[in-house]
Amino acid sequence: MYSFENDYSEGCLQEILDVLSETNLIQTTGYGLDEYCKEAEELIKKAVGVDSEVFFMVGGTQANMTVISSILRPHEGVISAETGHINVHETGSIESTGHKVITIKGVNGKLEADSIRELLEEHFNDPGREHIVKPGMIYVSNPTELGTLYKKSELEAIRKVADDFSIPLFLDGARLGAALVAPTNDLTLNDVGRLCDVFYIGGTKSGALFGEAIVFTNKKLTEDFRYLMKQRGGLLAKGRLLGIQFKSLFTDDLYFKAQKNAIDKAGEISKILKDNGYDLYAQTETNQIFPIVTNKQKEALRENFVFEDWVHLGDKTVIRFVTSWATTNEAVEALEKKLIELA
Amino acid sequence: MYSFENDYSEGCLQEILDVLSETNLIQTTGYGLDEYCKEAEELIKKAVGVDSEVFFMVGGTQANMTVISSILRPHEGVISAETGHINVHETGSIESTGHKVITIKGVNGKLEADSIRELLEEHFNDPGREHIVKPGMIYVSNPTELGTLYKKSELEAIRKVADDFSIPLFLDGARLGAALVAPTNDLTLNDVGRLCDVFYIGGTKSGALFGEAIVFTNKKLTEDFRYLMKQRGGLLAKGRLLGIQFKSLFTDDLYFKAQKNAIDKAGEISKILKDNGYDLYAQTETNQIFPIVTNKQKEALRENFVFEDWVHLGDKTVIRFVTSWATTNEAVEALEKKLIELA
Amino acid sequence: MYSFENDYSEGCLQEILDVLSETNLIQTTGYGLDEYCKEAEELIKKAVGVDSEVFFMVGGTQANMTVISSILRPHEGVISAETGHINVHETGSIESTGHKVITIKGVNGKLEADSIRELLEEHFNDPGREHIVKPGMIYVSNPTELGTLYKKSELEAIRKVADDFSIPLFLDGARLGAALVAPTNDLTLNDVGRLCDVFYIGGTKSGALFGEAIVFTNKKLTEDFRYLMKQRGGLLAKGRLLGIQFKSLFTDDLYFKAQKNAIDKAGEISKILKDNGYDLYAQTETNQIFPIVTNKQKEALRENFVFEDWVHLGDKTVIRFVTSWATTNEAVEALEKKLIELA
Amino acid sequence: MYSFENDYSEGCLQEILDVLSETNLIQTTGYGLDEYCKEAEELIKKAVGVDSEVFFMVGGTQANMTVISSILRPHEGVISAETGHINVHETGSIESTGHKVITIKGVNGKLEADSIRELLEEHFNDPGREHIVKPGMIYVSNPTELGTLYKKSELEAIRKVADDFSIPLFLDGARLGAALVAPTNDLTLNDVGRLCDVFYIGGTKSGALFGEAIVFTNKKLTEDFRYLMKQRGGLLAKGRLLGIQFKSLFTDDLYFKAQKNAIDKAGEISKILKDNGYDLYAQTETNQIFPIVTNKQKEALRENFVFEDWVHLGDKTVIRFVTSWATTNEAVEALEKKLIELA
Repeated sequence: MYSFENDYSEGCLQEILDVLSETNLIQTTGYGLDEYCKEAEELIKKAVGVDSEVFFMVGGTQANMTVISSILRPHEGVISAETGHINVHETGSIESTGHKVITIKGVNGKLEADSIRELLEEHFNDPGREHIVKPGMIYVSNPTELGTLYKKSELEAIRKVADDFSIPLFLDGARLGAALVAPTNDLTLNDVGRLCDVFYIGGTKSGALFGEAIVFTNKKLTEDFRYLMKQRGGLLAKGRLLGIQFKSLFTDDLYFKAQKNAIDKAGEISKILKDNGYDLYAQTETNQIFPIVTNKQKEALRENFVFEDWVHLGDKTVIRFVTSWATTNEAVEALEKKLIELA
Repeated sequence: MYSFENDYSEGCLQEILDVLSETNLIQTTGYGLDEYCKEAEELIKKAVGVDSEVFFMVGGTQANMTVISSILRPHEGVISAETGHINVHETGSIESTGHKVITIKGVNGKLEADSIRELLEEHFNDPGREHIVKPGMIYVSNPTELGTLYKKSELEAIRKVADDFSIPLFLDGARLGAALVAPTNDLTLNDVGRLCDVFYIGGTKSGALFGEAIVFTNKKLTEDFRYLMKQRGGLLAKGRLLGIQFKSLFTDDLYFKAQKNAIDKAGEISKILKDNGYDLYAQTETNQIFPIVTNKQKEALRENFVFEDWVHLGDKTVIRFVTSWATTNEAVEALEKKLIELA
Repeated sequence: MYSFENDYSEGCLQEILDVLSETNLIQTTGYGLDEYCKEAEELIKKAVGVDSEVFFMVGGTQANMTVISSILRPHEGVISAETGHINVHETGSIESTGHKVITIKGVNGKLEADSIRELLEEHFNDPGREHIVKPGMIYVSNPTELGTLYKKSELEAIRKVADDFSIPLFLDGARLGAALVAPTNDLTLNDVGRLCDVFYIGGTKSGALFGEAIVFTNKKLTEDFRYLMKQRGGLLAKGRLLGIQFKSLFTDDLYFKAQKNAIDKAGEISKILKDNGYDLYAQTETNQIFPIVTNKQKEALRENFVFEDWVHLGDKTVIRFVTSWATTNEAVEALEKKLIELA
Repeated sequence: MYSFENDYSEGCLQEILDVLSETNLIQTTGYGLDEYCKEAEELIKKAVGVDSEVFFMVGGTQANMTVISSILRPHEGVISAETGHINVHETGSIESTGHKVITIKGVNGKLEADSIRELLEEHFNDPGREHIVKPGMIYVSNPTELGTLYKKSELEAIRKVADDFSIPLFLDGARLGAALVAPTNDLTLNDVGRLCDVFYIGGTKSGALFGEAIVFTNKKLTEDFRYLMKQRGGLLAKGRLLGIQFKSLFTDDLYFKAQKNAIDKAGEISKILKDNGYDLYAQTETNQIFPIVTNKQKEALRENFVFEDWVHLGDKTVIRFVTSWATTNEAVEALEKKLIELA
């Protein structure tokens, strides 16, 4: 059985396991104030190339809720695409901190600058606006929840709106590694740093055991952030584990190399599908592939592979394959064989 | 330099590291629905010996806030000793979920059954009680934040109050392992399970990289608990890491054996102190030792050892040494040498 | 200058003012535990004709947030039409209590039973549903925010869904009086009581100084409700004022008679508009009329009348006239004259 | 039967009732944007004599929760005396907005500047302070919940602490009128305005039907305050009612004259008690009197008078009499007769 269910189905990169092992009995202070965290922060700041502050948290939902609730005042909400992870798949964690997720219909999972501008103008032109949640920040994911990518020009246009209305832009980079090494990508890590006020670099889905590195390039937003991390349950006692992992990931470009495998394997699978006459529900830009198969084909695939149903279309189903740093040639070959057989 | 600063200054037990390594490339589903979590749950249920449900979270603050806010209605608060961790050292995480921590002056860090009963009677006898936060659950820590232990009879008396007022009893067992192997302890894990509605078994401070196993022996309280874990940012993507670690800890009594070292080393240090004429601020019951030293002695100790100041008493200071599963003979011998030198 | 801006532009019905005056120096206990509140509760229970409990609050937003947050658990959200008042015009008060408003596209401002059922089925069939906010109750407004009315059959169909999924149905009756006396209405107050778990009867927009009577016909939902009213800042010290007003409103059918004027005047204005060739944006069912006028006509109307812009359509505007218990013949005649002049 | 239960047992001052009647059918816009509110604001600003902004809300709990939660960031708490209203009698409304009430043992219900300073120093000197709720503002009540008064020098000392730590000072003036006309008072309304960042002038307990006027003399704190009022359910639709009442209260010193009666009557009752050998539990400074009576005397008093039990002392009880703008000579004479009879 091979799993294409997700990019967090295994443990971690061997390099990380090795360093965890080597450093295991070294004593450090707790809560992320250790030397590994400092070194990891320096490596990340250098990679981003923008003056910034870095904080490490365990997971994405935690990072999203802590960053967003640290910035908004109680009557403010966060603008997100309808498909945004914070709107759909975090069990209302943003609302649990008191804030509305203000949704806009996106295009291919992406927010468009013009739609954001229109919403903001409508709000600030309304004489009765105090009866309405005030839009207080913009949330985008890159890659999006549909695996699509923001073009540099699109992110620049959103930055312009953020500047015009003086509200911060936050980028959820749970799979940022996969975005940055994708063939269709034209953004650099430095671009992301320059264009956003705060973003995070996902570790969990990129070969770490866990961990997200939150990068504030707008340093006005970091006041008391460690209090807020603690309050939301996100200050890891053995914070060193986050420092150790991100130090590894940002040494010798490990972070990007690991994602390269995810992207390559996704490209291979995509090609196999097309070559064998399968339709794709969406263009494969990163490490998520969305083939349309008959329900019969789906059942046959289930015998040897793990994957998610994405959309049900009568007697067909859009299914999702996810590749990762850990996807093997063996798994891709097995899948190829099966796909040819079922074609 | 040796650190007695805390019991989470190192990585993890070698046994855990080994299993993480062995299982690293095995594929599992995410979010704690994997086989390791199931096996760990079974082992823990067996060890507790009471019908129960087990959930794994990364840290203690997260476990406390998720459990407490999952049980209370909005107008209810949780009763805690003034020194309770949720009242003092979690940056108001309970309040961040909307609930008051209702404090009672404890004795040696412990809540007394009679004080709880008095508070509850006062509330329910007050005709204007709807203007006052309703006490909705009882929170105790064992060992307490001062390293002291509840006697079985004390916990039974609190259980009686909980029953009389039909409110649940929750035990924070961040250092439960240390409690259960302490010489002065008369509670078993089964007692804890029988007497509480819900408690957790701390991994972070007992040799795991991280992780707390929340055990609900009152299964009426678990409805939708996984939704709540997710909402609070506490559903770990690679949940397997929690399962793998707790499976290790509850195989061959590793959990208790590891804590035995902490307790033994604390006993040795305690004896060294007494033998050399140092006063102790509190009786050493578990793995925390509170010597009273002159400020001059303290400064001299700082040259080779890391530890926390606990209470400042003019030209003396109560300092705190914490031992753990990882404390070496070498560290204790170095400390002994220095203490003799400074006596 | 005549105002058609809203139905809360004046003080209150003369009958209410008289009783406030008569009872002014009578001493009562506070917080709604007085005799007037008891009498008002009895009158309302009798008018509803379903065994129930009644609580009085000052305003609608307060009533909505207190009722909804008293019923939902933290991970649950409330289903509402996109146009629902709680979703649009209460500055995120529901989210401020930690809950998501789960929106469905309504039809003419109304939720359709089938859409609710579909959303609920989708949720409960999703194996990963714990990552998604759990739908925990249904919110409808009658009349809706667009002035439209639920048919009895429509409300019965929604009740069926609520029963099938065991979630409560809450009806916001801020303008319920206007609904119940409208010509196109086929619901009785008793129907509302039978079909909902909880609803409120609006006083503010129906001739009281302020006040909403919350009626729980599902008495399982009222536990500790007064604590929750107090916590949300909604337990009025001089609670008698609410009792006195609702006692008046439910004596000699004053509540319905007062709304009759609103409906009649709306009918007259509607007829005047049609007779003079103005188009209506929506059918006039209750006391809100939505004429489409040219921007030039609008400016001319503004010289003598107060009203709101509703939708901007290039060189035309949908404007809104609201009538009430206090709308005079004089005002309608003045409006008629102007409309003829501008036609 | 005469009630000394509270100062909100009647309706309102005749002057207020008259103006409500006179203005009843005048049309205004809603939500406090009408002319009456503007006029009332101007009158209050003039009375305070400090540049300020004024907002009107219905009740005290609402005012407290809205002001406090509008100023604090999520990890911050508000410092209060243990006896503070927000800590004891508001059902955790502050916690419901996410914030801890940080308590200090007061003296006679008052916070002492030195205790506040000590708490703040301890917090900011703690290297691990991010694990602790950050003190973000100071809350005092004047008169306090025990009826005692802050001296000008005491409030100045607290102001000094607030300045030294750059945190705002908020004064709950639910009974501020009674304070300012009390014989032992040395504060003026202008002093209160100068020394606090924000305070409110209570209407409910001073002869209005309801209403509290929140005065921000620190205008940096008012940004978006109306959004927050709406979100907390506190933007009254017929906001004019607040404007009309406060305009009355601040015309011809009605507010202070009305409180003069409360204070005079309290003085008379206090003298009657002393002259007839009754002990007082606390000095009578404002309109609350705390006699110590035998339980037998208490039962006899209950036959003709309504009052609250305050503290139970075996066979004696501290009871509380409250006087108000509405307390009549007749009631005091009846009480005198009974007290002489029972002496």
